Amino acid sequence: MTPIIALLTDFTGYNWYIGVMKGVIMSINPSANIIDLCHDVSSQDVRAGSFVLGNSYSFFPRGTIFVAVVDPGVGSNRKNLIVKTEHHCFVGPDNGILSSIFEKAKVEKVYQVCPGKYTLTLKGSTFFGRDIFAPVAAHLSLGVPPEEIGGEIKSVLTVPAIKPYINEHGEISGRAVYVDTFGNIITNIEGSYLKGIFSAEIPVEDLVVRLAGQRIRGIRKYYEQSEPGRLMAIVNSWGYLEIAVNRGNAFQYLGLKEKKSLEIFISAATPSPQKR
Amino acid sequence: MTPIIALLTDFTGYNWYIGVMKGVIMSINPSANIIDLCHDVSSQDVRAGSFVLGNSYSFFPRGTIFVAVVDPGVGSNRKNLIVKTEHHCFVGPDNGILSSIFEKAKVEKVYQVCPGKYTLTLKGSTFFGRDIFAPVAAHLSLGVPPEEIGGEIKSVLTVPAIKPYINEHGEISGRAVYVDTFGNIITNIEGSYLKGIFSAEIPVEDLVVRLAGQRIRGIRKYYEQSEPGRLMAIVNSWGYLEIAVNRGNAFQYLGLKEKKSLEIFISAATPSPQKR
Amino acid sequence: MTPIIALLTDFTGYNWYIGVMKGVIMSINPSANIIDLCHDVSSQDVRAGSFVLGNSYSFFPRGTIFVAVVDPGVGSNRKNLIVKTEHHCFVGPDNGILSSIFEKAKVEKVYQVCPGKYTLTLKGSTFFGRDIFAPVAAHLSLGVPPEEIGGEIKSVLTVPAIKPYINEHGEISGRAVYVDTFGNIITNIEGSYLKGIFSAEIPVEDLVVRLAGQRIRGIRKYYEQSEPGRLMAIVNSWGYLEIAVNRGNAFQYLGLKEKKSLEIFISAATPSPQKR
Repeated sequence: MTPIIALLTDFTGYNWYIGVMKGVIMSINPSANIIDLCHDVSSQDVRAGSFVLGNSYSFFPRGTIFVAVVDPGVGSNRKNLIVKTEHHCFVGPDNGILSSIFEKAKVEKVYQVCPGKYTLTLKGSTFFGRDIFAPVAAHLSLGVPPEEIGGEIKSVLTVPAIKPYINEHGEISGRAVYVDTFGNIITNIEGSYLKGIFSAEIPVEDLVVRLAGQRIRGIRKYYEQSEPGRLMAIVNSWGYLEIAVNRGNAFQYLGLKEKKSLEIFISAATPSPQKR
Repeated sequence: MTPIIALLTDFTGYNWYIGVMKGVIMSINPSANIIDLCHDVSSQDVRAGSFVLGNSYSFFPRGTIFVAVVDPGVGSNRKNLIVKTEHHCFVGPDNGILSSIFEKAKVEKVYQVCPGKYTLTLKGSTFFGRDIFAPVAAHLSLGVPPEEIGGEIKSVLTVPAIKPYINEHGEISGRAVYVDTFGNIITNIEGSYLKGIFSAEIPVEDLVVRLAGQRIRGIRKYYEQSEPGRLMAIVNSWGYLEIAVNRGNAFQYLGLKEKKSLEIFISAATPSPQKR
Repeated sequence: MTPIIALLTDFTGYNWYIGVMKGVIMSINPSANIIDLCHDVSSQDVRAGSFVLGNSYSFFPRGTIFVAVVDPGVGSNRKNLIVKTEHHCFVGPDNGILSSIFEKAKVEKVYQVCPGKYTLTLKGSTFFGRDIFAPVAAHLSLGVPPEEIGGEIKSVLTVPAIKPYINEHGEISGRAVYVDTFGNIITNIEGSYLKGIFSAEIPVEDLVVRLAGQRIRGIRKYYEQSEPGRLMAIVNSWGYLEIAVNRGNAFQYLGLKEKKSLEIFISAATPSPQKR
């Protein structure tokens, strides 16, 4: 069985850049088993791409080869990587897109790939997805060992995920990391983190979430626990605090324009978190 | 040959929710043959999803397993279904998304699935597409019989399609059910229904279609029968009356914002329908 | 190995029209190997579709069958084509969508397909993608020879690509042909054409690009050669002059609404091109 090649890009829509990457892969491995993992990462948002990859990869079979192309620096002197972990292989630029893998998976070895025998001949410097990453993944899927394709290296660029923290008012302070197509705002605050801070003494019903001038009382488990059209906070199925509107769109509800840099604060309603 | 698994969702764009469902399926059945049927149903629009499914399924091979995830009530106490029809199998929530199947196909048995051996362990309650429906479809594609996966039930929630009717002015009164990416407005008025009402005495050239303050004379067969840029009515290849603009966008032409609840009226120009 | 069937449409989003075409193909050839090449061609933009196809097809394996559906004239008396080239096969309407193939590939024979044994029975006249092109491609993928499916014809409609030219001011005058999802504006000016005109005497740093009231000095090789947020010109990996903004969106930067008909001019800064 040929391993899966899963593609993650910020190409948005279903455009020919994705299609041509598939053509390149199948020209090298006609039996390739290609899956679209995600193509709607916001343009050039390396952090969001890394977040998606870090929360997705473990749902794929062992042996899956991931190709991650969120690559604003394409053609510059940033490296091209193969990252071999215990169960998977990741191909992409050395710009932080693979940071979540270094954080969550058991990385075994990292290789740097230069244009050559296992890539296409470069025609221009704006699309290494087609010329480098797709052919490398195709050769990996044929069983070519990574050490044949690249040279081992020891250090890579990591862009650490922004972590929530307790701010000067005793609140948990977090950020939006991804807004999905429903307008649900996924934050960097993990439900398990919330539990660690609050759970013993303070039930989730007594937590208060603040963002964009709004205040939400309590944290729910599923969307229908709130009345339709009303802003709510939930711990979602990825384990993160999410801001949503039941049968609506939280992003639009809040009148937001920009997906990034939205701050979210969580505190206990009573007793105040200062007392903990 | 492993059967096709066809995915229909309201996830819009090509996001990781779709990709992870595929990863889950292929983790269970590495030979799974997954097809994207449709991912652009309007968010949470169960009726539109049901309409698309009901008009699509018969174009797929026998044995195809459909996974339909338009599921605003995810995590609440609505059931998870497997619907076995004469030629296909359907997996999705018990919220009306499968209503068109009950209307159009020969339903043999219905099963309710609870989290267990054939699902993932639930992590949160916001994404049963990943945790329930994808793994159930994967097991079905491996040949596990539905009665092994769920318990048979006798009643489901159906959300009947809204049917056109003859209103007090003797006009056919229908509704928009789907606006496609060209801005074509597909209505719930079937061409065969039109024929039943009007055809013998009144040629389609003499029908008048009214919507959103506009009046269209005659019903065409293909787009180029109207001049470019002009509003037209057509019976489309799905058998429904459709409002279109040749080389243009009817939805934008009409200045519409909201896809739902647009009413369409059809009458005979002369003789007036009252006389029939 | 069953050949790849690669789909190119202007259906945008991932809608049921695409899904049903796949269902039709797999109903005829259950082993079909279907790839999405591109679905975001602007609605009814035959020229852009032809451009994408002409720049994509050579990245696919020999034997690939391309189905190109940008078809505003569907149902009218335009023909349905199979174009057999040296290495590939193309299926689509005779409206210019295949023009780039006639320009770039070695066309061997052209066949006209009429509804019949190798198509679905037409139900309406608005979706030949489903009723004609998908089933024809499926039969081709099963090895049915094109001369069995259609009758050979000698002439087709070609819509020639608009070529850049030297205008009365001695500037190269070109046009935008495609705006990608990053807002990069791809022009019809090939880098090799630029070289032919300017290179010997004038380094690319001394070229001046003008468009939409803006002036760009020099032509770059990769995006990071410009500072973030600034308009730049680049020869991209498809070989064309492209207008971009590093870490930004050139289309939005220029405040453009309409993707078509944007003109681009290139001249030498000094010495003036008139002197050559």
